[in-house]
Amino acid sequence: MDEPRWLDEREDRAWRGYRRMRRLLDLHLARDLMHDAGLSEPDYDVLSDLSETPGQRLRVRELADRMLWSRSRLSHHLTRMQQRGLVTREECPTDARGAIVVLTPQGRRAIEAAAPGHVAAVRRHLIDLLGPDEIAALAAFSHRVVENLSDAERSPPR
Amino acid sequence: MDEPRWLDEREDRAWRGYRRMRRLLDLHLARDLMHDAGLSEPDYDVLSDLSETPGQRLRVRELADRMLWSRSRLSHHLTRMQQRGLVTREECPTDARGAIVVLTPQGRRAIEAAAPGHVAAVRRHLIDLLGPDEIAALAAFSHRVVENLSDAERSPPR
Repeated sequence: MDEPRWLDEREDRAWRGYRRMRRLLDLHLARDLMHDAGLSEPDYDVLSDLSETPGQRLRVRELADRMLWSRSRLSHHLTRMQQRGLVTREECPTDARGAIVVLTPQGRRAIEAAAPGHVAAVRRHLIDLLGPDEIAALAAFSHRVVENLSDAERSPPR
Repeated sequence: MDEPRWLDEREDRAWRGYRRMRRLLDLHLARDLMHDAGLSEPDYDVLSDLSETPGQRLRVRELADRMLWSRSRLSHHLTRMQQRGLVTREECPTDARGAIVVLTPQGRRAIEAAAPGHVAAVRRHLIDLLGPDEIAALAAFSHRVVENLSDAERSPPR
């Protein structure tokens, strides 16, 4: 391997800041969500994705892709959410392999009750601390990073 | 609660981009690190923090604070790293409660072998995709977010 291109001081500061921000944000947002609404972040993501979808239903496979979870991990999680009455599962009529997860009325009430507090926490801990230029920069580079990694995902492994 | 201030379109785009970037980056960096060096991200953080410290040693408590892990979680992790020969533990001579973790020569070789590939992955997946203004913006707002959350940490819980 060639001599590594170590991060310079500015880059190192950005990278360390990012890592620490990510850890602290994860921790606080998860804590607030559990404290205020009794939901974990994956619970919230599932309920939120379903509530924004026509018919309030998604294929398990599609939901797993969005969450970057394996189908079996998501399946176990959905079983626990089902036991709490937040979702149900149906077989897909056109594809025997494609189980579908559906938001229940109780799940809808849970996400509607949780959303205002969660948005307030996202504002308090992140969004309201950034100026308009920083919001624009975050939106631009995060989507670029996601695009680049999604391309890497589609390419054959190294 | 007052009517929630929902995110506007720009803010929502930044927040969704951030969340997806965080998930994908975590996944790819962890995957590359395990594949190239046989280390998990917490392994890397422990070795990297120790290697940058005078005497290559830290109190377990100090290391746990940096990683935002509980001491018992870190202790279990260190036991496994100790079994692999990467670190050892000593009692603190001045404080019976303060165990100290020390990098071994094998741990030093592991971090020196892993660092070039990890830095290359951090560049490839994040840093080299950002322009100088974006690097500066990320450094500035991430440290602001961290500072704000650290202040919240020090205040009494709500």
